[in-house]
Amino acid sequence: MTFDILHRVGIDTSVDKVYETLTTLEGNRGWWDSRARGDGHKGGVLTFFEHDFQVTDAVPGELVKWKCVRGSPEWLGTEITFQLAHKKDQTFVLFKHAGWKEPVEFMHHCSTKWATFLLSLKALLETGKGRPAPGEVPVYVGG
Amino acid sequence: MTFDILHRVGIDTSVDKVYETLTTLEGNRGWWDSRARGDGHKGGVLTFFEHDFQVTDAVPGELVKWKCVRGSPEWLGTEITFQLAHKKDQTFVLFKHAGWKEPVEFMHHCSTKWATFLLSLKALLETGKGRPAPGEVPVYVGG
Repeated sequence: MTFDILHRVGIDTSVDKVYETLTTLEGNRGWWDSRARGDGHKGGVLTFFEHDFQVTDAVPGELVKWKCVRGSPEWLGTEITFQLAHKKDQTFVLFKHAGWKEPVEFMHHCSTKWATFLLSLKALLETGKGRPAPGEVPVYVGG
Repeated sequence: MTFDILHRVGIDTSVDKVYETLTTLEGNRGWWDSRARGDGHKGGVLTFFEHDFQVTDAVPGELVKWKCVRGSPEWLGTEITFQLAHKKDQTFVLFKHAGWKEPVEFMHHCSTKWATFLLSLKALLETGKGRPAPGEVPVYVGG
């Protein structure tokens, strides 16, 4: 049995704009980690916070999927999926960070951080300005 | 098998202040639902968003636990736990909304909303002003 972090945001933009943001280095630098490196297209590897993510799937207008192939023991092997759907005049991003081995305190922390970063993705696409790290929304004193 | 929403925030205040906020009507009105009604002490029933929550446990300095006893089919019977711990010069709130029957899209939505409300709790205690509903942080267009 494993454990998943789930989130959803609705963004006032097209599915294509969300897809482009999630599959390009520049796009991902705008909402998650401004120091990201690598290649966001299918088969590429993106590095965020010294963790490597292989882009294992990317279907225009539908979904983007990453697998953590280097990083902390808690993250290694976990998979992150962004499912996209346009409805109610916006693009909904159904987010899942799947495969945590235990619901450790760090998982609680990461769940809250993911919410702030997904709201950063929403802000980036709606206003042109996200809040990627460093400079992201703090969820504790000192972080 | 059931599914849980997890979060964690660290707040620049004492454990006692967090506990007081979570066990009083006025406190809970300041971060979650400004229209809340009821009694936040152990054994009491709080009403938020037309859902009733029995305060099934409340241990000063340690934890507060609610059970949803009236509400939407997805929420009914679920349990919400706030575990409190003072460390690293702040009070950490380890949050769990446990017992979802299925990881439905509404669960994804609620997970993101919980993050914004827990950051509202943090803001309330650190600045004196939270963002309870109505007027909370929107996570989609129209909500």
